[in-house]
Amino acid sequence: MHIYDLTVPQLIKTLRNLDAWLVRAGAHAESAQVPVETLLQARLAPDQYMLVRQIQVACDNAKYMAGRLAGKEWDSHPDTETTIEQLRGRIASVIGYLETFSPEDFETSHERRITLPWMEPGAFLPAHDYLVQFALPNFYFHVVTAYAILRSRGVQLGKNDYLGSLPVTS
Amino acid sequence: MHIYDLTVPQLIKTLRNLDAWLVRAGAHAESAQVPVETLLQARLAPDQYMLVRQIQVACDNAKYMAGRLAGKEWDSHPDTETTIEQLRGRIASVIGYLETFSPEDFETSHERRITLPWMEPGAFLPAHDYLVQFALPNFYFHVVTAYAILRSRGVQLGKNDYLGSLPVTS
Repeated sequence: MHIYDLTVPQLIKTLRNLDAWLVRAGAHAESAQVPVETLLQARLAPDQYMLVRQIQVACDNAKYMAGRLAGKEWDSHPDTETTIEQLRGRIASVIGYLETFSPEDFETSHERRITLPWMEPGAFLPAHDYLVQFALPNFYFHVVTAYAILRSRGVQLGKNDYLGSLPVTS
Repeated sequence: MHIYDLTVPQLIKTLRNLDAWLVRAGAHAESAQVPVETLLQARLAPDQYMLVRQIQVACDNAKYMAGRLAGKEWDSHPDTETTIEQLRGRIASVIGYLETFSPEDFETSHERRITLPWMEPGAFLPAHDYLVQFALPNFYFHVVTAYAILRSRGVQLGKNDYLGSLPVTS
């Protein structure tokens, strides 16, 4: 399988799903008369990231995954979002970035050595290991944790909202 | 990338991580004097699966993913676990099944049409779409939700427990 097919379209799809959950969260806050800030600052454990940060990190993971595997620069996002609209803007910005990629961008990805900020100088993960053991599980970690926080606060979401539509053929 | 490399080793690794969280959960229940059943039946929303079920489904997703993509039979697991030891046995059983796979089992996987129980007769997902859009996100969904439930109940876990060790090279 090609790295593009494993990443870009599914990252875009999942970020679009995440965006739709935020719309749902806004409507829920309004109907349940809960301040949106309470929802955005919710977390499942005292030492866990709050919802805003889960979404920021999910966005970063998607951006870094494609950018690092293709060796392409990305825009920095300063983590200043405090509203649903701002978070939706961040998601839209990352989707826009992902849409600039084509399969050709990943032609030499399998040879890349991926260095992460926390690694010792000279250390790296081979691209395949980075993708399978770090980037994909980490992306889903923050997406699913955002979903879990929203569910725990009463926002009505189900598995279809998580997976999105599937290209079932007959 | 080969489908084997995208699935089997990472599924085994993640199930081993999940197994270690259960050991941690048992120790937490003992030290916090919380009945283990309370932990195993915990959920984040009233209409969400409880922890036991999240683990059963994560195990099934791993089993089905490899089995369906390789066209290989699997053992049925009747979802009767009620203790940590039984859940660990289920995880061990699925790891044992996954360990029977070799890369050769997936040589014609890309041509497979994957039919899921809920589909209309004759409907299917092409193997690649099944893997990227359904099987991987679904597996991580239940693993991360299990993690989220444990974290929400005070079990001390961190990102390293989720990702496991990484093959960092220098």
